[in-house]
Amino acid sequence: MEEYKVIILGAGISGITCAIYLKRAGIEPLIIENNVPGGQLNKIGTIENYPGHKNITGPELSMNLLEQINDIKIEYDNITSIDYENNLIKTSNKEYQYNYLVFATGRRERLLGIDNEDYYIGAGISLCATCDGALYKDKEVIVVGGGNSATSEAIYLSNICKKVTLIHRRDDLRADNILKERISNKDNIEILYNSIIEDYIIEDNKITGVKLKDQTKIACDCIFIAIGSIPNSELFKGDKEKDYIKVNENLETSIKDVYACGDVVKKELYQLITASSDGATVANNIIKSINGSGINE
Amino acid sequence: MEEYKVIILGAGISGITCAIYLKRAGIEPLIIENNVPGGQLNKIGTIENYPGHKNITGPELSMNLLEQINDIKIEYDNITSIDYENNLIKTSNKEYQYNYLVFATGRRERLLGIDNEDYYIGAGISLCATCDGALYKDKEVIVVGGGNSATSEAIYLSNICKKVTLIHRRDDLRADNILKERISNKDNIEILYNSIIEDYIIEDNKITGVKLKDQTKIACDCIFIAIGSIPNSELFKGDKEKDYIKVNENLETSIKDVYACGDVVKKELYQLITASSDGATVANNIIKSINGSGINE
Repeated sequence: MEEYKVIILGAGISGITCAIYLKRAGIEPLIIENNVPGGQLNKIGTIENYPGHKNITGPELSMNLLEQINDIKIEYDNITSIDYENNLIKTSNKEYQYNYLVFATGRRERLLGIDNEDYYIGAGISLCATCDGALYKDKEVIVVGGGNSATSEAIYLSNICKKVTLIHRRDDLRADNILKERISNKDNIEILYNSIIEDYIIEDNKITGVKLKDQTKIACDCIFIAIGSIPNSELFKGDKEKDYIKVNENLETSIKDVYACGDVVKKELYQLITASSDGATVANNIIKSINGSGINE
Repeated sequence: MEEYKVIILGAGISGITCAIYLKRAGIEPLIIENNVPGGQLNKIGTIENYPGHKNITGPELSMNLLEQINDIKIEYDNITSIDYENNLIKTSNKEYQYNYLVFATGRRERLLGIDNEDYYIGAGISLCATCDGALYKDKEVIVVGGGNSATSEAIYLSNICKKVTLIHRRDDLRADNILKERISNKDNIEILYNSIIEDYIIEDNKITGVKLKDQTKIACDCIFIAIGSIPNSELFKGDKEKDYIKVNENLETSIKDVYACGDVVKKELYQLITASSDGATVANNIIKSINGSGINE
């Protein structure tokens, strides 16, 4: 069994920031990641609101972050269970003991809730325009959603695809004004307001279109879903609100010595910069607890 | 008189982040800065704990930030008074009206409190090793302080100067372990613990050394002072604690429609990443107040 003072679950920007700060204070953390490092960051096209980079792609920022922790151990594995009584984590073939545990597990994309939907991811459903957009050059695609993500994805795809249909269940986009302005200047984006997708149209085991509640059918080569997120909090067994982990102002959860930071936390503002700041705050509180004094004392 | 929905005081990382987020939401802020953009950032040598840049100098990060807001108006001027009843700001030759005011004024360096000390800044006293260090190649210098800043400055100067004496009033450095380790490997740094400077030694109108409380005299070509900071909160007339502006969880101050973010705020962790995150949070709350909904709604 391996023992660590601090184990961080998730190598997104929040977990990585937490690791950077711990390491500088002389505390060697372990990061356990069940997917690729950088998390959701890898699915963002252009980032313009991360201070210090006027314009950077998600995967680039993700690579920068990974380079910044090249002296910190990351274990790529799936956790099968956590024993909160004995501070034990089990993966498929290993056991780890921790003094402090940090949930920096982030969020994943929400699906429409149609039967068998999972099966068609990659076969007509995409959850990431910047990952898959290039596959649909000069084709017709649908984007579902009405927030910043859906609006950004529609704009991004409009530069590649012949036509983009944005399907939104409300009567107005809930996106930054700058994005609303940009989308209104795009001739090849059609926005269908007050529209709800009832079912997928499937041919030869592949999605070829959607059927709306009003029975309108729209053909497409791919559907990009951007209707929000689900927190990756299944392994956390303490207090949650709508599946988000509840924390106090020190980012402590309801379980002793378990902290949470970034997008998995119940809070107001889900941004890269706030997730990163959360990671530093958790590190500072753990440093204080282990070393007796925090970074700025 | 010029009118703005939001006026931000200070073009440091916190104020700049606030401006980036407001602008993206369609709200055009004015920034008023009484010094150089980037604030204290310009005085930092190497930054290794700002996520997304493995290694960047303070002035470089400062330039990046400034480039990121090249479409936002910055007025370089001194504010003479603020009328909080009528939302009016006066500078030497202009008047501005605001709906929302943001204090992002940061902090400045604390001095030792010796008579006439101000006068000798630039004549034997420096407040910034990365700014002035190169002037003291192969000379002997003193650094005062024992935290992360003083330790970093001593290490930085030890690569330029012949000898560095670090004078600290306590019996232990309060710096990150990584810095403690680095300083212990430096042959040309001497650390004087439990030592307090009583007076400067002055010759030909220039500081040439210091006298400690125990009457030891130490000659030097320059004294770098790094003993902490004073918040730039003089213009703020609401609730403060030890001169720091008190805010609630939404970063609202005790004065209506006046917010504060970054290093001028009373809080736990004073870091670039937390200051930046604060700026985004203030922007989100103002956006919510003006537009009816925040960024993630």
